Amino acid sequence: LEQGSMRHGQRMINSMHPAEIARLIESLPPAKREIIWEFVEPELEGDVLVELNEEVRSELISGMDAEELIAATEDLEVDDLADLIGDLPETLIERVLQSMDAQDRERLSSILAFEADSAGGLMNLDAVTVRPDVTIEVVLRYLRMRGELPDRTDRLFVVNRHDKYLGGIDITTLLTEDPESTVAELMDSAVEGISPQTPAPEVAKLFENHDLVSAAVVSPEGRLLGRITIDDVVDVIREEAERSVMSMAGLDEEDDMFAGVVTSARRRAIWISANLATAFLAANVVGMFEATIEKVVALAVLMPIVASMGGIAGSQTLILIIRGLVLGQIEQSNARWLLWREIAVGLLNGLVVAGVVGTAAGLWFRAWALGVIVFAALMINLLAAAIAGVGVPLVLKRLGIDPALAGGVTLTTITDVIGFASLLGLGTLFLL
Amino acid sequence: LEQGSMRHGQRMINSMHPAEIARLIESLPPAKREIIWEFVEPELEGDVLVELNEEVRSELISGMDAEELIAATEDLEVDDLADLIGDLPETLIERVLQSMDAQDRERLSSILAFEADSAGGLMNLDAVTVRPDVTIEVVLRYLRMRGELPDRTDRLFVVNRHDKYLGGIDITTLLTEDPESTVAELMDSAVEGISPQTPAPEVAKLFENHDLVSAAVVSPEGRLLGRITIDDVVDVIREEAERSVMSMAGLDEEDDMFAGVVTSARRRAIWISANLATAFLAANVVGMFEATIEKVVALAVLMPIVASMGGIAGSQTLILIIRGLVLGQIEQSNARWLLWREIAVGLLNGLVVAGVVGTAAGLWFRAWALGVIVFAALMINLLAAAIAGVGVPLVLKRLGIDPALAGGVTLTTITDVIGFASLLGLGTLFLL
Repeated sequence: LEQGSMRHGQRMINSMHPAEIARLIESLPPAKREIIWEFVEPELEGDVLVELNEEVRSELISGMDAEELIAATEDLEVDDLADLIGDLPETLIERVLQSMDAQDRERLSSILAFEADSAGGLMNLDAVTVRPDVTIEVVLRYLRMRGELPDRTDRLFVVNRHDKYLGGIDITTLLTEDPESTVAELMDSAVEGISPQTPAPEVAKLFENHDLVSAAVVSPEGRLLGRITIDDVVDVIREEAERSVMSMAGLDEEDDMFAGVVTSARRRAIWISANLATAFLAANVVGMFEATIEKVVALAVLMPIVASMGGIAGSQTLILIIRGLVLGQIEQSNARWLLWREIAVGLLNGLVVAGVVGTAAGLWFRAWALGVIVFAALMINLLAAAIAGVGVPLVLKRLGIDPALAGGVTLTTITDVIGFASLLGLGTLFLL
Repeated sequence: LEQGSMRHGQRMINSMHPAEIARLIESLPPAKREIIWEFVEPELEGDVLVELNEEVRSELISGMDAEELIAATEDLEVDDLADLIGDLPETLIERVLQSMDAQDRERLSSILAFEADSAGGLMNLDAVTVRPDVTIEVVLRYLRMRGELPDRTDRLFVVNRHDKYLGGIDITTLLTEDPESTVAELMDSAVEGISPQTPAPEVAKLFENHDLVSAAVVSPEGRLLGRITIDDVVDVIREEAERSVMSMAGLDEEDDMFAGVVTSARRRAIWISANLATAFLAANVVGMFEATIEKVVALAVLMPIVASMGGIAGSQTLILIIRGLVLGQIEQSNARWLLWREIAVGLLNGLVVAGVVGTAAGLWFRAWALGVIVFAALMINLLAAAIAGVGVPLVLKRLGIDPALAGGVTLTTITDVIGFASLLGLGTLFLL
């Protein structure tokens, strides 16, 4: 019976798509992963490894012996192998390379020459090409002779004798246009090839704006190098989105959700330490006003409100600006417009928030002077929040630092410091 | 000269793809949008409107007269018209419907019957269908007679006489397999149709896991209703990603980045008010310990550190869990495992953070008892942060509230309250 249900599980797993198996494995604690991994058929193993996140992948690879690994990588497409090869043990890379034929080895090295997150790193080498001077009929005969086309082939690429890229011709065009026409007459030469150095997010934007399924990658000299297909672009979009959310908390989207306690703790410690340093900075500002707090304890009670309201309002502006930067919608010319708009919004909402908190503070502590001071401190902090919300991401971007990663910490440090300093400073001036 | 450069600008804009024109218009302040919009050729206007975010779209629509709007919507595909029609003035909807032929009107209402963010709302009605019993040769002749195929047609759908969905056949199969074979012999019947009620994110996962370019939407009775294409799925993925980032700051991804000051201020006020309420809650906790702070002012200085460290550590756990929920990788069975892991990570990092802060506090204020109390308060708060980081999103999800929207506020309220209460509570017990 036990063996029967094992066999059932095995069948179920192997009927899944490699990407689905990968998501399933990632969602299991390490011990159970081994069991599932044992179930996966050898011919699927390579594709599952490609789909796994980096950390889980290396974990599984380290548990496989050389023969298994060679078998798993054997049937992979060259572009998938390029993604995987960096995670293989040194000695094995040598053997994998030797087991490939000369052409594939050359192809592999041509992909590895580009950054993984560039058009060159994303491309497949399975573009089907035709010459411009042949007729559709000849193309149709050639395709039938050639047999099965690569997945997601929606267009053939037109090249001349020297592999120079001339344009593309849709498969559907072959089916609906006059077979006597030549490729040159029907091809679409308006679609420019993508340079292999183009960063992956730019490639994604191109695909999105032009609703592409595949596109040519073309060298600066105009030679067709390969093609990028929408499935890899979808992965780029998904990863980019995940990275921006995860990096807001100093996390890496390639990290294993089920990583061990020590590994996780060590990783997060960096982020926590960075935030600890800024927390000390803010605490230090409070420390400067100890004498004031001792006399007007109410200030210590109101302190967190002033600081956190600045952080909340500032984060709204920050996220709006970061998104605008990602979409390429913010530039010098409209940044100033946005700054004034955010300042106006900040002051308007400031009037309401500061009014409520000021009145509440006045009533709570039966001290109207305190209410006025809280009002003023909140107005100052919401103004600072608007300016920092626009300025911080722009400055970080210019410094080459990812605003999604460092923007939040920088902003809340500013709003904490200014919030504490304005409330306690005004308190020192007018309440003592 | 002025007119010459105007004409140049006009040519440039109309050479862009509708999606690119839409992004450009969104990135401009309202006044400049009008100028660009005037430049856009009438035949592009409809497609640009479809690509714009809701707010900018209604703004432009309100500036167009009835004739312009009718002209703009005339050439739209039915599924795009379905997205747009809700934003048209009532009186105009009537006229648009009248200008359509009976078949298109029926199609439109069949799409409008489904939620916009479901498979039914995403589908196009341009699926090309064939019968199972015909040969490839017949299909090829039919296609050539039919002429141009809809964009992103990578497969034809196989239906019987009663429109019952039987499977799909790849266009590339038509080109490479024996023309004498029948459709039934070569079709892929393993690919199930998508139910029209399937939520858009589920559709996106299907496309991602199976690397699809198009897929059939099939009614519960098995009738082919339409097809979904990858370009619409890419938009779903992008919007979903944007929504989750924006909602963390209580923002809506459909809002106009350049909305007026009053509109923006009013929108953000809701989020700020919710946070203000929680800030008062935290302040109230501090208020309960006024007498303690008056005697040991150092506690007021250290308060923000204890609270913010809990918030930072908790946010890391929170974002990890929210991502796991979105990916469908967290369930009852592994949630408990994750909770213990997060508690262990929290306590491990707690030892370091609490050690550093406790020692620093002891040195700073030359009071070792204070150092020990800060140490203990931080340990308590990091433990609470781990539990809340796992528990809050799970509870919110069960309550039907989006964890990305409400998770952050709820978590930091908990870590603020517990941070303040533990530090000041312990201070009251042991330092007075």
